[in-house]
Amino acid sequence: MADLTVLPLEGIGEVRPGDDLAEILVDAAPWLAEGDVLVVTSKVVSKAEGRLVPIPPAEGPEREAARAELIDAETARPVARRGETRIVQTHHGLVLASAGIDVSNVDRGHAVLLPVDPDASAHRIRSGIRQRLRVHVAVIVSDTMGRPWRNGLTDVAIGAAGIGALHDHRGSYDAHGNELSVTQVAVIDELAAAADLVKGKADGIPAAVIRGYVPASTGAGARALVRDAELDLFSLGTAEARAEGLRAAATLADAPSFVDGPVPGDAIERALSIVDASVERTAGGDGLPPFTREVLKVKAESDVKAGMDVQRLRAALAAEGLASVWLPDAGLLAVGVTAGR
Amino acid sequence: MADLTVLPLEGIGEVRPGDDLAEILVDAAPWLAEGDVLVVTSKVVSKAEGRLVPIPPAEGPEREAARAELIDAETARPVARRGETRIVQTHHGLVLASAGIDVSNVDRGHAVLLPVDPDASAHRIRSGIRQRLRVHVAVIVSDTMGRPWRNGLTDVAIGAAGIGALHDHRGSYDAHGNELSVTQVAVIDELAAAADLVKGKADGIPAAVIRGYVPASTGAGARALVRDAELDLFSLGTAEARAEGLRAAATLADAPSFVDGPVPGDAIERALSIVDASVERTAGGDGLPPFTREVLKVKAESDVKAGMDVQRLRAALAAEGLASVWLPDAGLLAVGVTAGR
Repeated sequence: MADLTVLPLEGIGEVRPGDDLAEILVDAAPWLAEGDVLVVTSKVVSKAEGRLVPIPPAEGPEREAARAELIDAETARPVARRGETRIVQTHHGLVLASAGIDVSNVDRGHAVLLPVDPDASAHRIRSGIRQRLRVHVAVIVSDTMGRPWRNGLTDVAIGAAGIGALHDHRGSYDAHGNELSVTQVAVIDELAAAADLVKGKADGIPAAVIRGYVPASTGAGARALVRDAELDLFSLGTAEARAEGLRAAATLADAPSFVDGPVPGDAIERALSIVDASVERTAGGDGLPPFTREVLKVKAESDVKAGMDVQRLRAALAAEGLASVWLPDAGLLAVGVTAGR
Repeated sequence: MADLTVLPLEGIGEVRPGDDLAEILVDAAPWLAEGDVLVVTSKVVSKAEGRLVPIPPAEGPEREAARAELIDAETARPVARRGETRIVQTHHGLVLASAGIDVSNVDRGHAVLLPVDPDASAHRIRSGIRQRLRVHVAVIVSDTMGRPWRNGLTDVAIGAAGIGALHDHRGSYDAHGNELSVTQVAVIDELAAAADLVKGKADGIPAAVIRGYVPASTGAGARALVRDAELDLFSLGTAEARAEGLRAAATLADAPSFVDGPVPGDAIERALSIVDASVERTAGGDGLPPFTREVLKVKAESDVKAGMDVQRLRAALAAEGLASVWLPDAGLLAVGVTAGR
């Protein structure tokens, strides 16, 4: 592969609502050439698009309340919270601290929201540059994000135009004939990260150009990098998911419908092993629901204690993916599988 | 800031156990200069260090079992699992699919483990280059990682020498006098990402040089980017944390010790609202534990049903961070705060 150069765009002053950002970028980089990748910090895109909201300038509860309201409005789904830190999924699908709302690099009387549609913003900038310079550049709108498991922030792409978000290695083989396990590289995130190395957080270099990179394809914009929450193994914070588990225990259906299906051999043993109650595995009897896989009898010093132990056991079984029904007449707990899990 | 150039290191052949990697890199890049940042893919570092383990070459259960055993051995803590995908925290502290064990770019009879200590590997390469070329370069050992919330993989730094992992903006102010909210940038991750843009996954370019980047500081290696699990809001997969919550419901302490402390105004209301049971908030009576904040009476058609409802309610209260004690003689549930939560 060829060398790659990352060039900072200097001399861009304060960007204001209504400014023509393509014009500003072309003025700063009249040397933009066919195939260049232009990375623009979302902050200046937001400013040009007028995504500024007045907030009380003085530190204090009113400013905090105004920020909290803005975060609420930008939130599609809360993800995690600890103290003042709120991590949410925005309407764009991005998972971000404070919904990406920023109060740095703006006067104290305003907060900056993310662009409404960063892919569309990237498209507009790309078109504006094409009109003025008659060159086709790829445009990436970048933002700074934290991530689980690793300290420090990195820049990633939240908008893109004229470039594929992912470089797909599926179907490629290495020199040893192995199919490549690294299948899809988020190249626009890597380009955003590379650009950040020459941009400044506070020193007025809100854009950079990467020259020499050959985009693999054009594609669906940065939205292609948004993973559906249902497909995500980390869609909720650990504390929030734990609380969801506790609430699930509080709301276990009294009469789940069992379906035909296997029960992992040791699931019931694991459930019994964590419950501090005297439980007998029995052969069951008449009146059990269809597809009952196991029948348990709880022995306790009082009926209230037995009821508590039954419910504990139901929670432990649920943690193993098993449903259960308490049969009051028989005094037995029927265990099986439901469609839901 | 100045321009930055990213240069691929071509002509590096297959690296074998016992090879002197610094020598190989110097041969490929005799032009390495003071201040360059050399990014080396962990795969070739592992190979040079002999981190190859024989596995059955034929696809099938034996090969899978061998891989599973290797993952177990490299795992410090399981994080999440779905189907065949296992995400674990390794002994390095890295959270990685399959513990970072790879079977691509190696003959089918072997799997490649990560270097034992990637920071030490980076140091050795740096020293080897200094001895041969008399230049000080920074060295980053990179690996390819997935991440929550975003599709696609990116390269990050798992080892580093001669460069600070984080660029700290704390204490800086922008032109408007705001303290910068983006405080710590993971620059070695951004450098690893930039290098990946010129490296290939399968085409024998396992290293790249970044020229023109001025390292902010030297520091504690890539280990500085490992976040402690206790400080992480996403230390467990959502499904795993939910199951933990269910298990917590199954093992709620019968006699938690209440401590003095506030109860959020609407916590008990929220707990009651999700439990399908008839509950009365009462004034309580004698024999309540110290620091009892609230007393609840459950009314049910039978004592077993009452016991189940009591336990449901305790789970719902626990989801709000509240502990509870069932007082069998009084038939009341005492609610308060414990030190544990």
